This record gives sequence, structure tokens and C-alpha cells, in this order.
Amino acid sequence: MIGQQIHDLARLLWPMNRSLTGDGVRQTLSTIQALHLPGMTLHEVPTGTQAFDWVVPREWRVREAYLVTPSGERICDFSINNLHLLGYSIGVRQSMGLAELSGHLHSLPEQPEAIPYITSYYKERWGFCLSHRQRLALQDGVYQVVIDAELFDGHLSYGELLIPGTSRREVLLSTYVCHPSMANNELSGPTVTTFLAKWLLSLPERACSYRIVFIPETIGSIVYLSRHLAALQQDVIAGFNVTCVGDERAYSLLPSRLGDTLSDKVARHVLKWIDPGFRTHRWHERGSDERQYCAPGVGLPIASIMRSMYGSYPEYHTSLDDLVSVVTPAGLAGGYQVLRHALEAIERHCHPRATVLGEPQLGKRGLYPSISTRTSGAEALLMLDLLTWADGQHSLIDIADICEVPVWDLYPLLDTLRAHQLLAV
Amino acid sequence: MIGQQIHDLARLLWPMNRSLTGDGVRQTLSTIQALHLPGMTLHEVPTGTQAFDWVVPREWRVREAYLVTPSGERICDFSINNLHLLGYSIGVRQSMGLAELSGHLHSLPEQPEAIPYITSYYKERWGFCLSHRQRLALQDGVYQVVIDAELFDGHLSYGELLIPGTSRREVLLSTYVCHPSMANNELSGPTVTTFLAKWLLSLPERACSYRIVFIPETIGSIVYLSRHLAALQQDVIAGFNVTCVGDERAYSLLPSRLGDTLSDKVARHVLKWIDPGFRTHRWHERGSDERQYCAPGVGLPIASIMRSMYGSYPEYHTSLDDLVSVVTPAGLAGGYQVLRHALEAIERHCHPRATVLGEPQLGKRGLYPSISTRTSGAEALLMLDLLTWADGQHSLIDIADICEVPVWDLYPLLDTLRAHQLLAV
Amino acid sequence: MIGQQIHDLARLLWPMNRSLTGDGVRQTLSTIQALHLPGMTLHEVPTGTQAFDWVVPREWRVREAYLVTPSGERICDFSINNLHLLGYSIGVRQSMGLAELSGHLHSLPEQPEAIPYITSYYKERWGFCLSHRQRLALQDGVYQVVIDAELFDGHLSYGELLIPGTSRREVLLSTYVCHPSMANNELSGPTVTTFLAKWLLSLPERACSYRIVFIPETIGSIVYLSRHLAALQQDVIAGFNVTCVGDERAYSLLPSRLGDTLSDKVARHVLKWIDPGFRTHRWHERGSDERQYCAPGVGLPIASIMRSMYGSYPEYHTSLDDLVSVVTPAGLAGGYQVLRHALEAIERHCHPRATVLGEPQLGKRGLYPSISTRTSGAEALLMLDLLTWADGQHSLIDIADICEVPVWDLYPLLDTLRAHQLLAV
Repeated sequence: MIGQQIHDLARLLWPMNRSLTGDGVRQTLSTIQALHLPGMTLHEVPTGTQAFDWVVPREWRVREAYLVTPSGERICDFSINNLHLLGYSIGVRQSMGLAELSGHLHSLPEQPEAIPYITSYYKERWGFCLSHRQRLALQDGVYQVVIDAELFDGHLSYGELLIPGTSRREVLLSTYVCHPSMANNELSGPTVTTFLAKWLLSLPERACSYRIVFIPETIGSIVYLSRHLAALQQDVIAGFNVTCVGDERAYSLLPSRLGDTLSDKVARHVLKWIDPGFRTHRWHERGSDERQYCAPGVGLPIASIMRSMYGSYPEYHTSLDDLVSVVTPAGLAGGYQVLRHALEAIERHCHPRATVLGEPQLGKRGLYPSISTRTSGAEALLMLDLLTWADGQHSLIDIADICEVPVWDLYPLLDTLRAHQLLAV
Repeated sequence: MIGQQIHDLARLLWPMNRSLTGDGVRQTLSTIQALHLPGMTLHEVPTGTQAFDWVVPREWRVREAYLVTPSGERICDFSINNLHLLGYSIGVRQSMGLAELSGHLHSLPEQPEAIPYITSYYKERWGFCLSHRQRLALQDGVYQVVIDAELFDGHLSYGELLIPGTSRREVLLSTYVCHPSMANNELSGPTVTTFLAKWLLSLPERACSYRIVFIPETIGSIVYLSRHLAALQQDVIAGFNVTCVGDERAYSLLPSRLGDTLSDKVARHVLKWIDPGFRTHRWHERGSDERQYCAPGVGLPIASIMRSMYGSYPEYHTSLDDLVSVVTPAGLAGGYQVLRHALEAIERHCHPRATVLGEPQLGKRGLYPSISTRTSGAEALLMLDLLTWADGQHSLIDIADICEVPVWDLYPLLDTLRAHQLLAV
Repeated sequence: MIGQQIHDLARLLWPMNRSLTGDGVRQTLSTIQALHLPGMTLHEVPTGTQAFDWVVPREWRVREAYLVTPSGERICDFSINNLHLLGYSIGVRQSMGLAELSGHLHSLPEQPEAIPYITSYYKERWGFCLSHRQRLALQDGVYQVVIDAELFDGHLSYGELLIPGTSRREVLLSTYVCHPSMANNELSGPTVTTFLAKWLLSLPERACSYRIVFIPETIGSIVYLSRHLAALQQDVIAGFNVTCVGDERAYSLLPSRLGDTLSDKVARHVLKWIDPGFRTHRWHERGSDERQYCAPGVGLPIASIMRSMYGSYPEYHTSLDDLVSVVTPAGLAGGYQVLRHALEAIERHCHPRATVLGEPQLGKRGLYPSISTRTSGAEALLMLDLLTWADGQHSLIDIADICEVPVWDLYPLLDTLRAHQLLAV
């Protein structure tokens, strides 16, 4: 159900030519804004803007790109699959033999059916990507190279949605919109994030505020951090980089750099109850915006809860990472649910304190059986366990871990005990 | 020897009808006072007294209780076994058919020879407990129910013994006197505690003071805490809830709530040297007064060193928990010895400090062999190990653990080194 | 090469009669000074000087010592092997039967070819040590005992070399010169230390200062500490007791007393990369000057990196611990290299800090590939790992451990990043 809705959005966004910059990013953001998140604001940052050690690059525009074979066939057509064009290619209109052309072709001999995804953001190049099977079939002769593209002083685009809560505590969700037609390592991120935002907006009240950003990877997070660092460092108590949340093969975690933030604790707790066999990756394997959010001097508590992590599955960064065989409604629903559990655990994060000394007399409140047998009270024991650990030192997550139950089993007990004024948070 | 003395006292106390309140408790306390602990003071707390979240209940008095079968036989006679009467039963004198009576009968199908122990302290009920074998033999017909019992505004009784030491550091021993005729889960506690108190009183001098209480479980510790909390929180450095210390099947530990107090360290150390296979239970399995002593906001360092823990052995809370097959002189002697070792370790608890820089020259004091060989000094090595760790940071228990010896092996070495003024404590 | 040079020095020092005091120590020190370390200063401490709990003993001088058998043969001749004479023997010139003599003979039945090494520093004795094979061959009859030796008020001798660095941070190397003709458990220490000192002197610049002492064991370190304690406690950040660094059979570590000093961290790191199977001994097994350096109240961060540790190999403290079958050029070279790696790691010890927020753009500095593929950047990843952990909290050793590389792999990367002003230390 929710999985199908997320998948529908992903299919809609599929053909847009996302990159670091350009109209494909703008289309992606305005589609999400128009259909689901009207409160999202779109931002444009001019080429040349300094952001920490980086500079916003030129904007990329592609009108068309293809090769014409010696026999007159049009191949590697960008309009059919935008992966055919090397990302950030400069414009070219030229004829050349196959030998010369070959230096500009990229394919994967070990995956002969896959079109690889290649970019050259910071050095001017041009090139085409194609399946190795197709490449081997190329005939000798003169090829026409047509790339009607340009790099120009324009803007970097990103979207931002602020959802207020009743406290200044803030949760950051960051997802990226800079890869062209790929599913797990691109569209699963912004689409699941969109539906998490809708769920958050549907809540009658939120304890935390939420800051949700849709940005190009690396340069986008650096630009965003450079504009908001002090506020983020002051308010953000947890957050996730949302990527690779759409396949059905695994659940996995890339912890934050230091590995012990609230985000990490929540992620580990939720994942172990959803999938005891979830994989924990090492920080060494990082590869997305957590590199910036967790950097020395930045130090935000950002982890990544994923299905199959980027780099860990064979279709990664190829045309095989699609919305048919890799990313499915069920896979997206799983990614959505685990992140929603995590956000709920952050919403309800607290350090409960018992309000009476010693155990309260649950019996007089109808919360404990009135007759003792050797097994009596078994059903009330979890409530007593919650009370015994409610010392203001243990968080609700800590208590759930000690009690060996998922934290969501404690929510109704916490509510009951608060209603009886036996617990304060 | 000591085990037989403890067992004798337990047999004397066996028939008394202990409960939360009542004359059975008073008889138990005054017997211990008269025979062994004349210094113990007895206290009475009126019904209705508020204690934290609780109120002292009415006092329970039973004159007689039994059933008369259709054939005129008197069964379930309280005067023969006080477990037959449901604890805190109200008075009843009535005739009824077996079907109606059955709603008031309690038995254990899976243990057909055992009379179960059942109470209903905080809701008015009446009932009889009997073996399932006996229950199955009951004939249809009219039964007479006789319970000459009453609940009235009276008192809750407890005993307290204060044994002064040379410092304000205080050790709390708490044991309960509220179960009728059961052995491991009742009489082993107060009887072993009585003989530990006698041993403490026999010492020429004590570093610690000792506060020993004989109370009804739960409501008793809550009442006691509500009267003495500030003093206890200020002075108590360690202590034990003494229960289930009489059988021969196991040694076990229920650590304090936080698990790292001096009591826990001492208990783990002593137990591993007495019985390397001792069982460590989790706080989740708690079930006695540690629930109150370790509660949030109370936070006393109380652990439970036991033989077979309540709830963990088949005879628990039935008539089978007796002084014949379950609790034995040898079992009681083991419980006594392990607790005495623990108390001695608390008495001798210190953080030794070497008084000279570098190693002292043990040889000139006759403490080290004067000729070196490849193995010389082996016998003096433990003394050197004690000295090398005597940095004021490691406790004597820590040092024993590092040296892999029981702490009592260090007592004579400590005394020797203190006599030579090489160690200060 | 270096191993052969060290071995040559050891062979030169072999025959000298080292003990706690005396001309053998002086010869050893002045030979090292003359041939290799002209900057070393020699110190003499008078008999009777108080040092902490100890007193500098009398000086020992031996002119000759031997036995004459009933058949007139001269055996156990000190001039042939100085192990024959019990260390610190008093002078004797006497005839006696074999039975009486036997009380003064020492041999090892379980190692019949070995002459044991025995001393009696602090009680006046005399004695001879011989192989058990030789002892069994002794004939009945009258033996002449000749020991022309004396204990007199003289001095304890030690050598000290101070090598200045650019900071006050100081590294202590301590080695002992008090055992007669034995190789691993004596000469490997001062000879390897000599060549480490030469390497340190050859460096164009040193971040740390080095304090290198050649002392008799135990009394020597106590004397040295008693003269320099405050300075050592203020400046010494790490150091090693250098002993047993000459055989080829193992690498091993005796950590400092508390086990977590910089010396320990460096030693563990270096050893695991040089020999993953290295042995870690427990503090309980200590037996050299770490006993004094790490003592309570002294507390210097001194560990021992060794090849086969004293006491752990069969030839220990016997004539079999020689420069032929036990200590070899290759064994000495290994001991030298592992200690040099450790000293270099201390020299380069730092807590790097990234100078830019977020990741720096390595590409614009030519430090990162300009085209992305699924595997691009693999070669730059270690540099990014160094940067991501450069938070001022992790030492270079910590970072190497996290990255699972030897710390020396990070030195060139650190230098490059510092040259680009991307890291500060």
C-alpha cells in the first residue's frame, strides 16, 4: 500500500536527468513539491559560491546526445537512457574513427548487459557509457559524436522542508537528488523521505522539529552545512541520511562516525527488532553525505539506515539498478517502516523518572493482580521493569534493551504510568 | 555444626503462622530475641500508616480454619498446616456444595503432592489450598467452611538490631519473616541472619556498623525505608537481602539494580572462589526486598547472595519447601559461610597504599629469600604483587582479582606489611 | 648488517665480569662510551648512599677464584667463565672435603650441561656454580677453595646519555649492565640500546628528548629514580626497559603496570604489525626495572618490548644463554627494528586536526581521481580516512588502528596533507 505509493512516485521521477545541478534536479524537486510537499521551499545557489573548501560548480544543461554509427544508426541516445552520457560532459560535435572514440567509451566487461554510471564533475571531459555487449558489436568506421550540452554559470538547486515541533530539538533527514535514472541508489531516498515527511506532517503534534533536505550529494551537503552550521550544531539531536532504502535483500546500518549518537542507538535498536540479521557497516565504507555531516568540526549525529547499502550490491551505479528487479513496493515499504520506527523512537526519546520512592502499589490502581500465585504478576512485570529502570539515567531505548523488548512495546505502558502520575519524563 | 544450630532454630520457628502482620510474626521475632539476639528491638507500626505509596494494612488474626466434608471428615486444617488457609483470608462460616466451594480452592495439577502457598493481601477473599491429589478425591455433597479469622486495625511488626562499629560506614542485612511454614524461601533467611549477627557480635571490634532488620517483605521494607531513608542513604556502603540460603543445590547471586556496587563486587568475588559455577541472575528476575532498596530515588547498594533462588526450584512457594529434603544443616552452613566471607570482605575493604617509593627491600626485613635462583622469590611474589597494586586506586578485592587469589589469602600479607609499615590503608 | 654490528659489540663485552657494582660494569660502560657513545656520562654513587628504601651496597672486586680437586686439577675457574663464581661471593682460602664443599655448590640437575647464574647480593655467602655433569664427576677427597675477592666501600656505577629534542617531552630508555657472561638476558639490552642511541643521534631533528640509562638492575633504577624522580615524572611521556631483545624465537610485550600508557599503545601497535603472534605477558610476570619505574608513587609509563622474555626460555640465567645458539645477528636486528619503529611512533605521536570543515576537495589539489567509477578513489581512500579521523581526539596510532594499517603507512600521507595545509598536528 504505502510501498506502492512510494514506487509510483519513483516511477514518475525516473526519467529526469538529475545531476549535481540543472533542470533535472529542479523538475524532481518541483514534482515532489507539487504532488506531496507543498511546504517545501526551493533554493538556488549561484555558481562560484564558496562553501567551506569547495566552490559551487557551473550548471549543466543537455539538449541532446548520441552517437551515429558508420551505418547511420543512432545509438547511446541520451533521450532513451540518460546514463548513456557521461555526467557533466561538455558539448562536442565531431566525427572520428572507432579507435579515437574508444577513449571516450565506458563499459563493464564483467557485467556485459549493464550501462555504467560515470561522471566527471570537476574536470572537463566528454564520454558515452554503454553495455559491454553493445560495445563489442561496434563496427570499424567513422562515427559522429553529437553532444549538445553546456556548462554555464547558473545555480545549484536544493529543497528544504521545516516541520515545527513543540521543542527546539531537531531531527535532520537528508536525501540526495543528483543521480539520473537509478532506483535504489537514488530514487528510493527522496521518495521514501517524501512519505516520511507526509507522515510527520500528519501527526497532531510533534515533540521534535524536523529539517528535511533534498540536495545533490557532497557539494549539496557542503553548501547546506556552510549556510546552517551553527543552527544545526545547536539543535540537531539525531538524523539520518536517507539512501538505498528500496530493495528487499537486506537491512543495514552505516553508523555515524563516532558510532554512539542517539541516531546510532535508535537505529541499532529498531533494526535488531525488525531484522536480527541486519548488517552493520564500518565507517570506512561510508560514501554519502554522512562524510560531511559527521566530519571533524561539523560533528552532527547522522547515521544511515539502509536496505542494501551502496557499493554492496551488483547493480549499484549501473542501469541494472532499476524499479523492476531491484527496487520494489515491498522493499520501499520496509525502508519506510524502519525509518518511521526510528523517527518515532526519537520522538518518544526520554529518560523516565519514577515519581514515588520504592515500588508504587500497582494493585490499588488495578494494574496488578490481587491474588499471588507462583506465576502471578507475569503480565504486570514489564510495567514493573519500566518503573525500576525509570531513574532518570536510562533512556526509554536503554530500558527496552535491558528488558529485551522493542521500544514500541513500552509506549502504551509509559502512557498508562504517566496517566497515573507514576512516571515523569 | 553451625549448620545444625541454624537448622534447630528453623525447626523451632517452623509452625508459627507468619504473614504480613500478626502474632506469628511477633512469636518469630521474640523467639529469636529471647534465644539469640537480646539486643534486638521490636517495633509496631499502626494499621493505616502511610509509607511512600503504600499504607500499612490491617492486622490478620486466625483462630481456626478447616473444611468438613460431606462424610464429616475435617480436612485442610490450618492447625495441622498453615499453608491450607489462603493468606489474609477473611472469616467465613458457611455450608456449600463442592461446585461453589471449588471457586475457593487452590491446588497445583502439575505438582499433585504439593500444597501451594497463596495470599490475597490487598483484596478481601477467602480460600483453601490443598494438594491436587487430595482435591481430586473430594466427593460431591455439602461442605462446611469454617474460617475463624479477622482483619482489624492493629500493627505491622518488625525487629531491628544495631551493632556499632568504629566508623560510620554501615552494612545493612535485611531478611523477611512473613511466610508461613516454608523453609528455603523463608526460614533460611532469618535463621542464617541470626547466626551472622551472633558472629558479628562476637568480634572484638568491627570497622563497620551493622543494621539488621527482620521485616515482612515489601510492605516491611517500604515502611522501614520510609522511616530511615536519609540515614541509610548516608551511611550504608553495602548490604544483602538474606533469603533462600538453605539448600545444597546451588549458589547464586541477584546483583543490585545497577550491578556494580561494593556488595556486588564482594559477592561476585566470594562466590567465584566458593563455587566457580555459581549462577548470576538478572535484575529482571528480582522478587524480594531489593526491589525497594534499589529502587530509583532509594538506590541502596543491596544484592542477594543465595543458594537456590526463589522461583528457580520446583518446591518454591509450596509445602514441599521443607526442612527435610530441601533445607539441610549443610545447606544452611554453606549459606552462612558465604555471607560471612562477604561481610568479612566488606569489613576489610580498603585501598592500600605503599608507603615507600619503588619496591621496598623485603630482604632486610626477612620477607624475601637472600639467594637468587631462577625460581627464588616464588613464595614472596604474592606479597610483591600486593605491594605493586597498592597505589590507593585499587581496592583489596581488585588486587585479589588481579592476583587471581581469594581476598582472604591477602589478609595475613596485608597485616604483615602493615606491621612493617610498608602499607597504609 | 645492523644485527652484525650489534652482535660484534656484544662479543666484545661478553667476558667482562658485570655485577651490581665493580670494574666489570665500568669496563662495559667505558667500552660503549669509547666506541659508540662519546656523549654518555659515567656516574659513581658511593656505598652507603640511601635511595628510597634501599642503601647502595659495597662494591665487589674479584681477583681470582677456582677450586683445586684432590687430583690437583683447577676447576670452576672464574677466569674461564665468570658464572662459576656465585655473584657477590666473599673471599675464601680454605681446604675442605667434598661433603662440606657441596653446601657451596650450585648446579641444575634438569639441565646437566648448564652452569647456573646465582647471586647473593644482600647476605654474605660464597659459592661456586658448575654444570651438573661436572658436579657428578667430582671425586671424594680434599678440595682447595680459592676466592680472592672482597666487598668494600666503593661505588655503584652507571651511564647516562641525554639527547635533546625540540620539546620537553622525554622518552626514557633503560637497560641494565649487571649480569656477567650471558647474552639475551644481558648483552642484547645494552648493545641494542647503544645502536638505538646512535640512530637517534643521527636524526637531523628530534621532537622528543631522550634519556638513556645503563644501570645495574633494581638498585640502579632505584638510585636513578631517587635522584631524578620529579624531572622524570614531569617530562617522560613514554619509554622502554630494554632487555632480552636478541633471540629469534618470539616477540613479546610486558605492558606497564596500568597497561594503557602511550608506551603500551605504541608497543602493541608496532608488535602486531611486525609479528601478529607476539606474546603479551601479564604484569604478574614482571621481573626487571619496570618494577621500579611503574611502582605506586613513581608511575612512569615504561613497558618492555622483548624477543623471548626473561624466565620464559630454557637457557635463561645459565651459561647456555650465549651469543651463538641463543642470541644472533638476526635476532638482535629484529629487536632493534621493533624498538626503532616504536620510538619513531612516539616521535610522530600527534592528534591531527583537519583544518577545513567537511571534506576538503582533494581533486583540485591533484590528490583525488577526476573521474568517478564504481571503484574510483580507492587509492585516495586512506587519505580520506586519515582526514575523517583527524578530529583532534584520535592519535595517529588510534587512526592507524581504526584504518587497520601500520602507523608508518600514514607518515607520508600526514606529510602530504600537512604540506597542503589540510592537517595540523
